[in-house]
Amino acid sequence: MTAATNGSYYAVIFSSQRTDGDNGYSQMGERMEELAREQPGFLGVESVRDASGSGITISYWESLEAIHNWKQHQSHKVAQEEGQQVWYENYKVRICKVEREYSFDA
Amino acid sequence: MTAATNGSYYAVIFSSQRTDGDNGYSQMGERMEELAREQPGFLGVESVRDASGSGITISYWESLEAIHNWKQHQSHKVAQEEGQQVWYENYKVRICKVEREYSFDA
Repeated sequence: MTAATNGSYYAVIFSSQRTDGDNGYSQMGERMEELAREQPGFLGVESVRDASGSGITISYWESLEAIHNWKQHQSHKVAQEEGQQVWYENYKVRICKVEREYSFDA
Repeated sequence: MTAATNGSYYAVIFSSQRTDGDNGYSQMGERMEELAREQPGFLGVESVRDASGSGITISYWESLEAIHNWKQHQSHKVAQEEGQQVWYENYKVRICKVEREYSFDA
C-alpha cells in the first residue's frame, strides 16, 4: 500500500566518494550526526555507504534557514574543512524542497 | 573549491530496504536503469546500497511531467509491482525540486 502526503520541508543530498582509510572519519561522522540532531529545524537523516566508499547522506530540515544555520555551525565548519582536506575525494551537495512523498511497507 | 549554481530540475529520492536474496532484482534493476536513461527529461542517477540491504537511489529529471511519465511507464509499473511483492521490505519516495547545488573535487 502507498499513501501520498504533501511535504513542506527540505532535503540536503550529500553524494560523496571517500578517500582510503578512516583517518578519524567515523568518529567525526558520529559527532556531526549527534550535533545535527540537536539543531533547530532538524527532521531526520538517512545515510548509506558501500564498500567502495561511495555514499549518499540525506538530511531533512524544516526550512532553508535551518540548513543555512547548520552549514555555518562552527563545529560543522571545522568538519567540512577536514572533509575537504582528508576524507573526501569529491562530493556534491544539493539543497531541495520536498514536494511530494509516498511510502510502502510490506 | 566549491562553486554554487542555480538548479532548476527535480530529484526523486528512493530510500529502500531490500528483502533477502536476489530473486531477479539485479537484472531488473539494470533493465530499469537502462530504460530510465532512454526517457525524455532524464538527467542522471546515483545509487548506493550497503551490505545490509539499505539503499538510496536518486534519479534526476528535467520536470515533474518527466517523473510522472516514468512512473506510469508500463515496464516500470511491472517492476514497481514486483518490487512490492518480492524485492523490498519497505521504501519511501520523495519528489523534490533542486533549489541549489555546489560541489567539491580534491
